[in-house]
Order: sequence, then C-alpha cells, then structure tokens
Amino acid sequence: MTSMLAELTQCIAPHLHAVDRLFSGELQSRVECVNTLVRHVSRFRGKMLRPCLVLLSGQACGGAGDAHVTIATVVEMVHMATLVHDDVLDEAELRRKGATLNHLRGNEAAVLLGDYLISHSYHLCSSLQDQFASRLIARTTNEVCEGELLQIHHRNNLDLDEETYFEIIGRKTAALCGACCLLGAKLAGAGEDVVARFETYGRALGVAFQIEDDILDIVGDPHTVGKTLGIDVEKGKLTLPMIHFLRTAPREHGLLLRTLMESREPDKGDKIRNLILPSRSIGYARDVARGQIDRARTALAGLPDTEARQVLDTMAGFVIARST
Amino acid sequence: MTSMLAELTQCIAPHLHAVDRLFSGELQSRVECVNTLVRHVSRFRGKMLRPCLVLLSGQACGGAGDAHVTIATVVEMVHMATLVHDDVLDEAELRRKGATLNHLRGNEAAVLLGDYLISHSYHLCSSLQDQFASRLIARTTNEVCEGELLQIHHRNNLDLDEETYFEIIGRKTAALCGACCLLGAKLAGAGEDVVARFETYGRALGVAFQIEDDILDIVGDPHTVGKTLGIDVEKGKLTLPMIHFLRTAPREHGLLLRTLMESREPDKGDKIRNLILPSRSIGYARDVARGQIDRARTALAGLPDTEARQVLDTMAGFVIARST
Repeated sequence: MTSMLAELTQCIAPHLHAVDRLFSGELQSRVECVNTLVRHVSRFRGKMLRPCLVLLSGQACGGAGDAHVTIATVVEMVHMATLVHDDVLDEAELRRKGATLNHLRGNEAAVLLGDYLISHSYHLCSSLQDQFASRLIARTTNEVCEGELLQIHHRNNLDLDEETYFEIIGRKTAALCGACCLLGAKLAGAGEDVVARFETYGRALGVAFQIEDDILDIVGDPHTVGKTLGIDVEKGKLTLPMIHFLRTAPREHGLLLRTLMESREPDKGDKIRNLILPSRSIGYARDVARGQIDRARTALAGLPDTEARQVLDTMAGFVIARST
Repeated sequence: MTSMLAELTQCIAPHLHAVDRLFSGELQSRVECVNTLVRHVSRFRGKMLRPCLVLLSGQACGGAGDAHVTIATVVEMVHMATLVHDDVLDEAELRRKGATLNHLRGNEAAVLLGDYLISHSYHLCSSLQDQFASRLIARTTNEVCEGELLQIHHRNNLDLDEETYFEIIGRKTAALCGACCLLGAKLAGAGEDVVARFETYGRALGVAFQIEDDILDIVGDPHTVGKTLGIDVEKGKLTLPMIHFLRTAPREHGLLLRTLMESREPDKGDKIRNLILPSRSIGYARDVARGQIDRARTALAGLPDTEARQVLDTMAGFVIARST
C-alpha cells in the first residue's frame, strides 16, 4: 500500500516533504538524549495516512497552505504518540518490522517519549493564529483516550456487543481521521456543509480502517503486515469478526472460542484463526467495512471533481483491499 | 502544610472552589468507566500548590479573574497527569497514603488516564481567547518531558554532576511552577519586568521544592510524608544530598554508597539513610534550597505590598520548613 499511496499522493508531495521537515524540526531538543530517542522512534514512521487526509482534504477544497502543513504534522505526532503509548499497552513484539521503543528502553521511556510527542503536537498546534484547531485537536485526543479506556474496561469481556465495539473504534480510531479531514476542509475555507461531509468521509474511513486491522490481526501474513498478529486475541480484545462469530457460530464453536480466549496456550492464536477462518465472520466484517467505505465515498460525491477528491476516493478503496 | 496553606490562601478561597468545580466538570465523560477512573484518581488531589501560584500571582498583580481559574485548573491537570504517569515510572507503592492507580488497575490504565488528563488540560487551555497561554503551557510540558527523559537517561549514573542535576529538576519541576506564576501575572495585565520577576519566583520555588523532596526521600517519616520513602534510591536516581556525599565524603564512605546503590538488598534504603544522615550532605542540600528561597523572595521584593504578595512570601518559607 505504501508505494501505491506515494504514487497517489504526488499532488501533495511538496506538502508532505514540508511535513517531514516540520516534524523533525519541532522535535529537535537541546537535550541530546531526547534526540536519540526521537530518532529511534522516527524510524517507525508509517505511511503518513493522517497527514495525507489533512492535505488532500485541503487540496480538494481549494488548496492546502502552511496551516495545513502545520496541522498535518500535528496529527502525525498525535498518531505517533498513540503508537508509542500503545506499545506500553500492547506489549507488541514487532512494530513495523522493528523492535518497539518499549522493548529497547523499557516502559518508562515509552511513556515519556509519547508524552513528549503529544506535548509537541499541542505546542505546534498553538502556533496557529486562532484557537479553533487547538480546541478541535484537544477534543479529539479526549475522544481517543476515552476510546482506549473503554477498550481496556472491556478487556476479556466475551459478551462485548457490536454497539460498544463501534463506540470504542469510533473514538479511538475514527475520531482522529474525521478531525484530519474536517480541519483540512475548514482551513481551506470550505463552508459548513462541505466541512461536515469531509468529517463524515474521515470518520467512515477510520472505522473501515480499524475493521480491516481487526481482520488482518486474524488472517494477515506477519511478513506483509509487518507486525505481530493475534495481538488482539492475546490482549483479550474482542474484534468485529469474533463478536460476530460468538453471536452466530454453532454453539459448540462459540464455546470453543470462549475457552481458547480464556486459555493461556501459547498457540491459541493459531487455533482461533483456524476456527474463525472457515466461518462467515470474516466476510461479515468485510461487508461492514465495505459499507463504511461506501458511506465515505458518498459523502464526497457531488463535490467538485478535483484530483485530490479522486485520490481520496481511490484511497478509500485501498483500505478494504488490504486484507483481500 | 496543607492546613497552613488553606489558612494562608483565604484570599483566593472562592477562586480555588471555582478551580475544583471546573476540574470536575471538564473531566466529566459520557463514557462511565472513565468517570470511575477519574473519581479514583481525584482522591489523590493534593494541596493545589500550582493553582495557588497562578491565583496568588494574579491577585498580587491586580486581581485574578476567570482566565486565572481556567489556567489554575489547567496546571493542576498537568500536574496530576505527571503524577499518574510517574506511577508507571516509579512503581511507587504509596501516593498520598492511598494505593496508586497503577497498582489498582495496571500500567495501561495509568498511561491512558494520564493522557486523558493532559488532553483535557490542553482542551481547557484552548478555550481561552488567545493562544498565548496554550503556547506557553505546551512549551512547559515539552520541558517537563525533557527533564524526565534526561533523568531516566542518567538513572544509575553514579557520576551525575550537580549541573546536570539542576538541568533535570529545572525542567521537570521548576518549569511548571515558573509558568504558573508567569501566567498569573501576565493574565492580570502585569508588565514585562513584573512578569519576569514572577517567573523567577516560581522557578526558584520549584527548585527548592524539589530539593526538599529529595531531602525528605532520605530523612522523612513515611507517615508524615504520606508516600514511600527511599524511592529515588530504589530507582537509581541520584539526588542532591547523594551527589554532594559522593563528592565530599571520605573515600571509603563514598565507595560504600556506590556499592549500596548498585546492590539489590531489600533494606539498602535504610543503610543509605544511616550513611548520609550523619554527614554534611543533608545540610548542604538545605543550604542550596534556602538560597533558592532567598532568590524567590528577592524577585518579589519591591512589588506593591498586597496580601497575595505576602502569602507568596510566606509560602516560600514553608517550602524549606517541610523537612526540618
């Protein structure tokens, strides 16, 4: 997906370079050991999905400028901070094919480096002239934290229902994607209705993205995905395919999944995979993701047919192509 | 100290109540499990030193208003967030005579609840009309993180020098106290010179406060201090009395301290205490703290003789009276 995304985002390539420069510049510290940690974590930088959403939404609404580059950098920092703190949370063994900061330096450095990233994201955000973006970004991070706390609260809850599942991922993943698109449109001067459409696009894309991540956690190839699979299972997180399975599979299959989820067998991930793969539950989750992608595309339909809008439309398709 | 502080701060009592209300209101979530965690952590609320600094500085410069109440709440949230994340860091067994969030709910909830607090502090801050306070608060939290990261970097470094020690505490403790006083004065409309004096007062007070904490970690009575002692030692943090001891004590005493610091004996804290207590090192650290308090008081000398200014002066004296 990364190289496809690079090709797709040619129209915002100079802006993405500016984001890279601003990202490094803002995090530069006079305390040398901080720079070492930042360099270490910067190697895990991903495909810059969230900055792309800000910049493309701006372009699709008349043009992305300096404020877009600032906000694109802010959201990338927020996202990186959540990844770093997730490593404290998740004990993930691999993150994008590298050792996590957590495993190299311990929980404490991971907590503080995440704090450093989030602090700098607000610092950068507050360099903009008015408070609108600062307020929105902070409201979004409030939501992200609530989603994560709700997820922890329901850890090992094998009776988690779909409604709560959607509340969790709506806050922890979709809120930030929605804010990216909302701010991209708003900072380009779009009117209220258009801004709301972009937010809808971003939120729906985020929901689909998270469901695809859930699916990949079960069906993915560790070499392609580049991170440990079966983590959701290990951490007692019920995902959409599992929720569907527990609701619809023959009673004895459901009981088996419950037993496996609660067991400490080292290869329980494989057993759960073999149980769920032949069922309709992966297909069900894919359908739900597809529905969200339709929703995202519909939100942007009817807007002026710019290159950026087309790229947003194509990106939406990529999200659900990841696991197939 | 708490009751003395309550008596001293009569002149800002209504503002402090407003801070309490704003604190609870802002953290209120629609996600019920979040409210449970917040209630839990709110029981550890301390003596509101930082809100007092904001409000008293405002009063001393002509009057504290709504913006002061907002910023006072912001800094209390920032401080609480650092306490919650310190529990991930410190494995402290007692925090103000209560179990820490960490021990009750695990590292993950502590990380996320700290994030929730910091996110809400920025959210609240960005409700003010202009960006000045947001920018300053974020710059301050950048500094706090740097200080904490520098401290971790030097963990178990028995050759830590005083210069680096002061760089650590300057960032991790003094920066926020300085920002409290700076913002208190600035938001009351004080001129540049007066604002700078208040920042100097706050920073010096913060340095003295941290040194006193260091001293209490060695000489304190766990029942009075209300938290586990010997934590600095356990965590391989060299404090001012220890740095002085290693530099000045007879060679064999220094070697003994090094051996104890590196050992895993369960009662090494007691042994270190018995080694340092008879030396001049506690007295030395007290003198340094006293020097900072003089500096703080001098910064405010010559300003109009208001009740608030007198309280700030008296509070400075209390800081160094804690351990004697």
